[in-house]
Amino acid sequence: MNIDKYGNFSDWYNEIIKVAELCDLRYNIKGFIVIMPWAMKSIDQIYKFYDAEMERTSHLPAFFPSLIHEKSFGAEKEHVAGFVPEVLWVTEAGDKKLEERYALKPTGEAGIYPMYALWVNGLSDLPIKIYQKGWVWRHETKATKPFIRGREFLWIEAHDVFATPSEASAQVAEDAGMAKTVIWGKLGVPFIMFRRPQWDKFAGADNTFAADTLMPDGKVLQVASTHLLGQHFSKAYGIKYTDAKNEPQFAWQTCYGPGVNRIYAAMVAVHGDNRGMVVPYDAAPIQVAIIPILRKGNEGKVLAEAGKIETALSGIARVKLDTRDQSPGFKFNDWEQRGVPLRIEIGERDIANGSAVLAVRDTGKKENVKIADLNSAITKAGAELGARLASSASERFLKNLDTAKSADEMARKIDEGKMVKVPFCTDAKEGEACAKALKEKHSCDIRGTVFTFFNSEKCEFESSDKPHGEKCVSCGKPANAHVYVARQY
Amino acid sequence: MNIDKYGNFSDWYNEIIKVAELCDLRYNIKGFIVIMPWAMKSIDQIYKFYDAEMERTSHLPAFFPSLIHEKSFGAEKEHVAGFVPEVLWVTEAGDKKLEERYALKPTGEAGIYPMYALWVNGLSDLPIKIYQKGWVWRHETKATKPFIRGREFLWIEAHDVFATPSEASAQVAEDAGMAKTVIWGKLGVPFIMFRRPQWDKFAGADNTFAADTLMPDGKVLQVASTHLLGQHFSKAYGIKYTDAKNEPQFAWQTCYGPGVNRIYAAMVAVHGDNRGMVVPYDAAPIQVAIIPILRKGNEGKVLAEAGKIETALSGIARVKLDTRDQSPGFKFNDWEQRGVPLRIEIGERDIANGSAVLAVRDTGKKENVKIADLNSAITKAGAELGARLASSASERFLKNLDTAKSADEMARKIDEGKMVKVPFCTDAKEGEACAKALKEKHSCDIRGTVFTFFNSEKCEFESSDKPHGEKCVSCGKPANAHVYVARQY
Repeated sequence: MNIDKYGNFSDWYNEIIKVAELCDLRYNIKGFIVIMPWAMKSIDQIYKFYDAEMERTSHLPAFFPSLIHEKSFGAEKEHVAGFVPEVLWVTEAGDKKLEERYALKPTGEAGIYPMYALWVNGLSDLPIKIYQKGWVWRHETKATKPFIRGREFLWIEAHDVFATPSEASAQVAEDAGMAKTVIWGKLGVPFIMFRRPQWDKFAGADNTFAADTLMPDGKVLQVASTHLLGQHFSKAYGIKYTDAKNEPQFAWQTCYGPGVNRIYAAMVAVHGDNRGMVVPYDAAPIQVAIIPILRKGNEGKVLAEAGKIETALSGIARVKLDTRDQSPGFKFNDWEQRGVPLRIEIGERDIANGSAVLAVRDTGKKENVKIADLNSAITKAGAELGARLASSASERFLKNLDTAKSADEMARKIDEGKMVKVPFCTDAKEGEACAKALKEKHSCDIRGTVFTFFNSEKCEFESSDKPHGEKCVSCGKPANAHVYVARQY
Repeated sequence: MNIDKYGNFSDWYNEIIKVAELCDLRYNIKGFIVIMPWAMKSIDQIYKFYDAEMERTSHLPAFFPSLIHEKSFGAEKEHVAGFVPEVLWVTEAGDKKLEERYALKPTGEAGIYPMYALWVNGLSDLPIKIYQKGWVWRHETKATKPFIRGREFLWIEAHDVFATPSEASAQVAEDAGMAKTVIWGKLGVPFIMFRRPQWDKFAGADNTFAADTLMPDGKVLQVASTHLLGQHFSKAYGIKYTDAKNEPQFAWQTCYGPGVNRIYAAMVAVHGDNRGMVVPYDAAPIQVAIIPILRKGNEGKVLAEAGKIETALSGIARVKLDTRDQSPGFKFNDWEQRGVPLRIEIGERDIANGSAVLAVRDTGKKENVKIADLNSAITKAGAELGARLASSASERFLKNLDTAKSADEMARKIDEGKMVKVPFCTDAKEGEACAKALKEKHSCDIRGTVFTFFNSEKCEFESSDKPHGEKCVSCGKPANAHVYVARQY
């Protein structure tokens, strides 16, 4: 392929999905896709990265049912109002109508928290830090887009319960830390985690914190979110403990949802180039493809040597010897489109020299490497490629952050594909009118105040970046927050 | 706990689930359970073992939707008839009735094979070897039992497509090999994989091969099955390739379903003892629990030394220092019930001696080990425990295989908790009447002819163990097969 990623992202993305065989859109239920092996292998890798982070932060895995009883939904009023419009309902079994309806879970709270109410009694039952891998269903009415918006998507949800609000706040910071380790550290995808405005928070939360990355078309994609639930759900579901004074207390909760599908989409979009995918070394299904350069008569010899290299490398990398009955050119192109980070080419002349050619996906550079040195060369080249991808993604991301003093300046910069920081009257409920006015005129969304950056350790529940004497870009009244504005997916 | 596992298995199993906190049965939809962390960690381990086997056998992961369009179900007539009675149907979205019904998949075929029909064109598209991890839903009418029979269960399904029937047969043998590596090799659970009689095969298959293990109450539990689908589905869904002569040919298929829930149940049941679980070393969420023996005034010193041991062991084992505010006796009992393979006890006197106490869960033996030698002692003791569990499980399993010449002898031995091999008129369709007669009189089931044993490399599509001049235990006519009979879950 050869499509300008920045000039024509939508075509680029659709073509990548085809040539790298990431998913099949022909499944016969609208909004449901088949995830194909090349994507699934990287997605499994993302799950592994998160498993390690969940273990590091003392989260335990569990499994809660996919179906939620209709009566469990009703307990938290804002939550049910937020989710019910897109719930898929199971109403029949075999040829019988069920006496009650079951929701295919759009998110886990209403299934999980009635259990937590049974599990939490005393202080010694806290904290609960539990997560579940799996998928959820939302009957989206917006247009679907593979891995970005679908009616069924892969994710992780962690649901934590604490005795105090300060522990809950600390959890939100820890959740942001996990996102930094995986999304930025492992996959090289930069993001800002915002505190969302009150009118854009998770249904039933006190506050929502969400990580937005910037896609090549200048639109932002939310890849993970974590929510300070306060005591809304603990009161609704009766999650309470007896404190040291023998008094009943409602617990403080958080929930965290990295969107595995979307993290994958961001990884594909941020690192790919006009010729295809470029997969960060750590997440690549195949890290090294070995292409034998065969000529009539030398096949046995070359394949034997290539096989030896495959065996030698298999302890340190995910490696694949490509023995398909295709030309080297076809294979080069195929692995390039799929974004395999490193390629080894080996033919008769190389063998005579005791060397092989090592080609690097992102730079396109090729070098001769002694076969005896391949292991160290691969490890080094893989790490360097990962660092290069992250560094150029970070540079691009930061370059596309800008500021504006007026709505027009903001809109012009958003049109250039930027996230723009502006003075805004407030990010609390009453700012909604200002946000609506901006959206109507410039089709843009308030992302919120900065909670933390991908490459920073600091988390700010209340942003210290306050306007001084500036005016809200929407209503012109005195501003009291700096918020980022962008177009969103 | 102290319950006679063999004398009263049902109570034992229910109690284990409570004291080891394996699942919570109070979820408010019948037949749906919450799997708690202690079980989920081992289940994740079982998935990892299977991931490695799938990789070894060149299977690739993919994700197919959870919902199947009603019209896709209808294609294979036997399949639809077999599964539709227990399908859960999604019929509404938000507050609207859907125009079509979607099945929550009870098994993947009807969702996957229409896609395969699109993917397979030429010989170069074959073989397809794809698997999916996840869960499925069947609205069982039989009584449910945690991890053994539920309306939602965790499994793996592999769906393979070949150009020839011999490749498909080889796949069935490979599937059996994966079961041997994981279920027997990693978890020490013995089984026989049978070729099921024709009347008990998977809906839509030519032949079903299923692995049965023996539970402590003498009933068998099917833990995995693999099916020779022949061309039934390829004809129904149009999965065909153009052969070397440019002729269209229908493909040959297999599908394989290890029941992860059930494998876990078998592991719990086979290895536990009257005092609780005993988890094989490889599958244990925590392999080594460290219990500090604290007395007033020495807490800091003992905890510091215990912490050093935890750190030293953490590279070679999943280890947990138990710092809960509970007595050592409480902790011993708690970890014993949960089946942690090894326990280290360390107090002030041990530290003075430069040693710690190493206790082994299954034998109950304790020994003093120099702290400097703990790493090697742990590795050795873990491996020995695994080998001991497997060896005693194998011995018990083989001791409970028996033979009989008459229905009465058979029934008596089944009452003793055995699987009994008997001469039988046939295992093809016409034997069904004989099977029904036996079931009515003795509530037992024909498991089939032996395909392979857990500890054997031989697979027999047609059993060589033929009767000579013996008579069917049911009808008295000349027998032409030796089949095993048992009570089943």
